[in-house]
Amino acid sequence: MSDVETITYPIKKLTEFVVRVFEYLDIPKEDAHLASEVLATSDLRGIDSHGVARLHSYFGLLRQGRINPKPNIKILRESASTATVDGDNGLGLVVGPKSNLIALDKAEDAGTGWVSVSNTNHYGIAGYYPLIGLDRDMIGWSMTNSSSLVTPLWGAERMLGTNPLAIAFPGHEEPPIVIDMATCVAPLGKVEIAMRKKLPLPQGWAIDREGNPAIQPSEMLNEGALLPLGSDRDHGGHKGYCLAVMVDVLSCVLSGANWGPFGIPFVIDQEMPKRSVGKGIGHFFGAMRIDAFIDPLEFKKQIDDYIRVFRATKPAPGTQGPLIPGDPERKQEKIRSRDGIPLVLPVVEDLRYIAKTSGIPFDQ
Amino acid sequence: MSDVETITYPIKKLTEFVVRVFEYLDIPKEDAHLASEVLATSDLRGIDSHGVARLHSYFGLLRQGRINPKPNIKILRESASTATVDGDNGLGLVVGPKSNLIALDKAEDAGTGWVSVSNTNHYGIAGYYPLIGLDRDMIGWSMTNSSSLVTPLWGAERMLGTNPLAIAFPGHEEPPIVIDMATCVAPLGKVEIAMRKKLPLPQGWAIDREGNPAIQPSEMLNEGALLPLGSDRDHGGHKGYCLAVMVDVLSCVLSGANWGPFGIPFVIDQEMPKRSVGKGIGHFFGAMRIDAFIDPLEFKKQIDDYIRVFRATKPAPGTQGPLIPGDPERKQEKIRSRDGIPLVLPVVEDLRYIAKTSGIPFDQ
Repeated sequence: MSDVETITYPIKKLTEFVVRVFEYLDIPKEDAHLASEVLATSDLRGIDSHGVARLHSYFGLLRQGRINPKPNIKILRESASTATVDGDNGLGLVVGPKSNLIALDKAEDAGTGWVSVSNTNHYGIAGYYPLIGLDRDMIGWSMTNSSSLVTPLWGAERMLGTNPLAIAFPGHEEPPIVIDMATCVAPLGKVEIAMRKKLPLPQGWAIDREGNPAIQPSEMLNEGALLPLGSDRDHGGHKGYCLAVMVDVLSCVLSGANWGPFGIPFVIDQEMPKRSVGKGIGHFFGAMRIDAFIDPLEFKKQIDDYIRVFRATKPAPGTQGPLIPGDPERKQEKIRSRDGIPLVLPVVEDLRYIAKTSGIPFDQ
Repeated sequence: MSDVETITYPIKKLTEFVVRVFEYLDIPKEDAHLASEVLATSDLRGIDSHGVARLHSYFGLLRQGRINPKPNIKILRESASTATVDGDNGLGLVVGPKSNLIALDKAEDAGTGWVSVSNTNHYGIAGYYPLIGLDRDMIGWSMTNSSSLVTPLWGAERMLGTNPLAIAFPGHEEPPIVIDMATCVAPLGKVEIAMRKKLPLPQGWAIDREGNPAIQPSEMLNEGALLPLGSDRDHGGHKGYCLAVMVDVLSCVLSGANWGPFGIPFVIDQEMPKRSVGKGIGHFFGAMRIDAFIDPLEFKKQIDDYIRVFRATKPAPGTQGPLIPGDPERKQEKIRSRDGIPLVLPVVEDLRYIAKTSGIPFDQ
């Protein structure tokens, strides 16, 4: 980010603004706080694409009435360890955390809880959700589909979302292992950065609209597609494709949401899919009580040992050795909690536009 | 395989031989049938590395007393939807299917069932297990660790197994979607094939013992390591590493098995790990009753639609378009059920050695 101009804001100031904006958009106070917490977690952990940078889209969709500010979130079907939730077209930042809580509560009684959610919208970073279970000594899972950007291996069109998967494991003295990964090679945001910097794309990231390798970012952005993790057959592109399908089926087919190429776009100006095969997009949450398997202290001490053993791995030449999943985000969180969130100028402009439109003061 | 000499055997003949060999090794009859079924599924589905090709290793380990032929498989801890199983150092081909059944039975009552298993051994192909749940309208999961061969991103040594993940979703008129994937770029078997053919390795498959890219297969085989899915940082190598860690923690830390670099080697002549951090290797099984989430017929019809939509994806140039996960294995199963299993000569030699040692006739 060092070569991009930014303005830095304390997280508290951003969060207060976000809460007021959501309340202005008829979101109940408690829900507005929940939603702002999800966005703040993203900004603090350095995942700039999923924090307040998205407020402009939520703002537009809510103002257009395309998201329901006061959803009646319903359990459609349940068992001791499962529930299927209809999010009533609510904000994903509200439907997500509430559905995740259902999974955690199911786990208290049944050992594990698994919730598939339809009729919802973009839910922020996948990695927010498993963090919530850590304090309850639970292993949390989260997945979601999103509007299609990724081609299956050997395809030449957008058929799948970036379909992330997140899971976290608590340590005792060490911090938790936190996995949060999209199932494609590179995020769209990195293609857009390459576009702005006028740089070609690394091989194996994307294809153009004909299915040939995209060399210039514009070739991907103009109806091309991102490649699944693994890129090509020789490097396991079928595996990234499989993972995206897994996330898609658990989040959407199991809940009755729009899967594959029919995922509802999150941004206002994107064309709606040709067909509807369900309601909204879909999420999938899981919670596993550690003491339903093993003594939690024993588990957490083993995780400590695991982390120390992996930190001591012999480093590859030119590197400092392997990181522990979650390290980069923890490092960012430490810095940003103290120093504030650096926002690029287009995001600041978006927030100023929201401020002007809503009359809620931002940075004057 | 067309350039390698093979001898073809009917699956029935191989299975009968395998059952007799396991019985000769003091495995109870019923367990011998179970174990042979797992191996046969692998051979039929074209995963040559995990079928009768492995009998020689099982034979050696059982003869040396390193695997318990009559394990007392115990549930150490359980809840409505979970169990932790101690496999009593039994054959993974027996402990695996029995633990998987515990997951399926838990799901009958609680909606889902999740079983983490320690003190077990190599369990065959991960993809065998989710197939079992399909007839019961369940989504099955399976994972396992294995002896270390894979480096974390930015590491220069073997720290993780190839740690596969499998899951399957039933269709109605269409066949099921069956995902079965290791979390590294390429399997060891492909490196060994390149070695025999004197071919260099594709970039991004492996490193040598110093952590530099392995160009010759020997450089990987001689204390080098395989790379995690994604290969390098630019192509998501951290994601493959994360997936391997996820499989490892769920299979081993949650059950009390040997994780990471301490996974017990499956072959006889491989050095034992420096430390023991648990018992045996570990597996993880899951079962989700579809009707605990949604009407199973509705689900299966959506899977049909899903498969048809993905088959109709615009193909990339030079390809026939995307496959559905499970297609290659189904194609092999059709051919091999009819025509038999082609075994390469070294495997035939191994089986003849077992026949000679045990006195059980094989192919004379």
